[in-house]
Amino acid sequence: MKKPIAFAVIAALLFQAPSGSADYRDLTSRFLKQGMSDSYAIRLLTELTGIGPRQTASANAATAVDWAKRRMEKLGLEHVRLEPVQVPHWVRGEREEAYAATRDGLIPLAVTALGGSTATPADGVTAPVIEVRSLEEAKQLGEAVKGKIIFFNGPMDPAFLNTFEAYGKAAEQRTKGPSQVSAAGAIAALVRSMTMVVDDVPHTGATRFEGGVAPIPAAALSTVAANRLSEYLKEEPQLKVTVILSAKTLEDAPSANVVGEIRGSEKPDEIVLIGAHLDSWDKGTGAHDDGAGCAHVLEAARLILALKLKPKRTIRVVLFMNEEFGLNGAKAYAAEERPGEKPIAALETDAGGFTPRGFAMEAKGRPLKKFLQLSKWLQPLGAGAFIAGHAGSDVGELVKKGVPGIGFMPDSQRYFDYHHSDHDTLDKVNARELELGAISIATLAYILAEEGL
Amino acid sequence: MKKPIAFAVIAALLFQAPSGSADYRDLTSRFLKQGMSDSYAIRLLTELTGIGPRQTASANAATAVDWAKRRMEKLGLEHVRLEPVQVPHWVRGEREEAYAATRDGLIPLAVTALGGSTATPADGVTAPVIEVRSLEEAKQLGEAVKGKIIFFNGPMDPAFLNTFEAYGKAAEQRTKGPSQVSAAGAIAALVRSMTMVVDDVPHTGATRFEGGVAPIPAAALSTVAANRLSEYLKEEPQLKVTVILSAKTLEDAPSANVVGEIRGSEKPDEIVLIGAHLDSWDKGTGAHDDGAGCAHVLEAARLILALKLKPKRTIRVVLFMNEEFGLNGAKAYAAEERPGEKPIAALETDAGGFTPRGFAMEAKGRPLKKFLQLSKWLQPLGAGAFIAGHAGSDVGELVKKGVPGIGFMPDSQRYFDYHHSDHDTLDKVNARELELGAISIATLAYILAEEGL
Repeated sequence: MKKPIAFAVIAALLFQAPSGSADYRDLTSRFLKQGMSDSYAIRLLTELTGIGPRQTASANAATAVDWAKRRMEKLGLEHVRLEPVQVPHWVRGEREEAYAATRDGLIPLAVTALGGSTATPADGVTAPVIEVRSLEEAKQLGEAVKGKIIFFNGPMDPAFLNTFEAYGKAAEQRTKGPSQVSAAGAIAALVRSMTMVVDDVPHTGATRFEGGVAPIPAAALSTVAANRLSEYLKEEPQLKVTVILSAKTLEDAPSANVVGEIRGSEKPDEIVLIGAHLDSWDKGTGAHDDGAGCAHVLEAARLILALKLKPKRTIRVVLFMNEEFGLNGAKAYAAEERPGEKPIAALETDAGGFTPRGFAMEAKGRPLKKFLQLSKWLQPLGAGAFIAGHAGSDVGELVKKGVPGIGFMPDSQRYFDYHHSDHDTLDKVNARELELGAISIATLAYILAEEGL
Repeated sequence: MKKPIAFAVIAALLFQAPSGSADYRDLTSRFLKQGMSDSYAIRLLTELTGIGPRQTASANAATAVDWAKRRMEKLGLEHVRLEPVQVPHWVRGEREEAYAATRDGLIPLAVTALGGSTATPADGVTAPVIEVRSLEEAKQLGEAVKGKIIFFNGPMDPAFLNTFEAYGKAAEQRTKGPSQVSAAGAIAALVRSMTMVVDDVPHTGATRFEGGVAPIPAAALSTVAANRLSEYLKEEPQLKVTVILSAKTLEDAPSANVVGEIRGSEKPDEIVLIGAHLDSWDKGTGAHDDGAGCAHVLEAARLILALKLKPKRTIRVVLFMNEEFGLNGAKAYAAEERPGEKPIAALETDAGGFTPRGFAMEAKGRPLKKFLQLSKWLQPLGAGAFIAGHAGSDVGELVKKGVPGIGFMPDSQRYFDYHHSDHDTLDKVNARELELGAISIATLAYILAEEGL
């Protein structure tokens, strides 16, 4: 048998600090001790979710902006400020109902409007339904969609280990499907909820009508309702469904990103950004999406201050507004001229408050290589899976400008059980798992602020 | 900067199959596809927890033995049988109460008897309380413990990343504390629940009175009750507590381990054991401890059969009886003469149904080295953390006889939130996380059955 390299040898190589580079072995244990003893991230999340859901342009979102600013000041961050941004204002309205007219009578279907949906007339829209499993299938229907309700029922593929990959494949039915079928003459769209759990709670999310396509009523069906409708359609392909929605789009409204810093001791103009989004959908209380991320980055900053660390470069905490429905905060942040500043990296946490596994970097060449070498310092936290990959939607706006983007990767198994639904509440967040995320982000952010990229 | 070995190079080395060794790259994706699509582990666990708690020697435990045998037969395992074992029979009884007599009146304290506790008189035992944080502190009390109730209040240390390490440090207060203070003249013992969650649900578990020490009443306090009692004792060190328990030990009873196999195609007498324990405490329904383990190993066998794999060596599924209160099943299994058999490895899953992280091997030399090399095949499942370490209590009896023991290591963050308490129910188990455990165990068991150690 050819002798493969021994595990211990690999470990030794991984732990060999490059000469000229500091040794951060103590850092993780110090963060771990402070963080797990204080368990402060869950307190931050309790306060934030206590405000309620924080839908963009809502009164709660404004309350969350005020809370975040006060909280950053209380934690001792410097240069705390609001950076104004205009945001869209879509509201769900009162009524969300759907019924299938079957041989068994009117069968109610649990639905919730997708962000961007229009209202139906007060008595709803009623039409035959065509079920498809993908955008491609819908496209092939051609003229047949005219006057119909198109039902996108492609499930998330459970065989992906990383649930975000399954979401990535399936979610275009929600984000693009209604627009595509509106352009072809459909009068409404129903989309299977983006979750692998079978229950009667629908999961909302954004849909986009672009390029002059007229918005139509568009709603998510619970997975139970989707399965039920699909079963009925097998027996009664001509059955009609009625959908009643009262969603509408109001005037754009003013809001803000919330920003605070730990100023660098040696190179204050070099910026390591750690960010999350303060808005949520109007379902649940946005505990995992993205309350957890907000708690992560605030707690990461608190931990760095609690250990009296003085990073060489500036660590900037940014809570972005409106990730969910247009990325206005991220776009405004990226568009802002910041003379004299040099962005080092932009880290985003928007994948829930679960046990950390690692980080993904969206960059190439030297920064990516250096990033991958840093994985050794996160191994003791179980967060050493460093890969090249997608960083996140908010920092994506900075990635477009050449800034290395980094995405926090917690365990993904439970995320879509809760995402964009009434299930996304504080009780679904484990205090230790949440704190470990904050500790991992604090560790990486501090090392980046010391080392650069 | 000295150039450290690049990540890609390490990955390439890890993935370099030793010559003469098969390539299992397809295996994980096949298991993943089959397992995640079927999602069968959660069905098995739903059936098992549907029986209720499965305390050793209870009627439910007997039902579980029957269920397990039928289930193995239905899954298509061979040579399914019960291996008889005598087990102890301890029962909780009706009453579990405690009160602190304070200036504020009688304060109720949530308690639950520890396995092995005796009953108090019907009107309880009443005595002053001495609070300690460790066995050592209790030892230093000397004569002062006479006639007292000793209150072990050392918390689990939250700074351990692996919660089992925190448990390992704190749990001797529960397992050994009551015996130690009984020997010194204490009349009862109260022990802080082994959990890091602060709530009013007490967590039970075994306590041992050994070497002729007389059993005394011994109970776990909820963490809320422990904190409350500790606070009162600061103000009123002389306060008395009354404890009322009706626990008792009955005659030993007959029970069984449940065993079934996938017979090896080339070396059927070489055995790769995969095991879990069928008994639970009488709190909750033993969903994580160790219903999840039972579901893991049954589902691992089902997956191997579903993919029509024919392992060279025998994979033997063993559901042990009475892990919780004396390891009788494990001891009986290990004591049994099995002429002609050669045990290759014994793998145990008793750490909950959470996302897999890796496996630990309790062995040295060549088997350990070969085991660590196998980690590469589990990397695609996120379960590639292979270490030398404790394998588990049940297979520990085989480790004593020189068999390499392997312990499944899922994420540990939430385990002690539920362990041995009313919280340990099916709704705390995530179907995907559970299935991934079964897939990881199936993968490793099959490779071991192909490769040996």
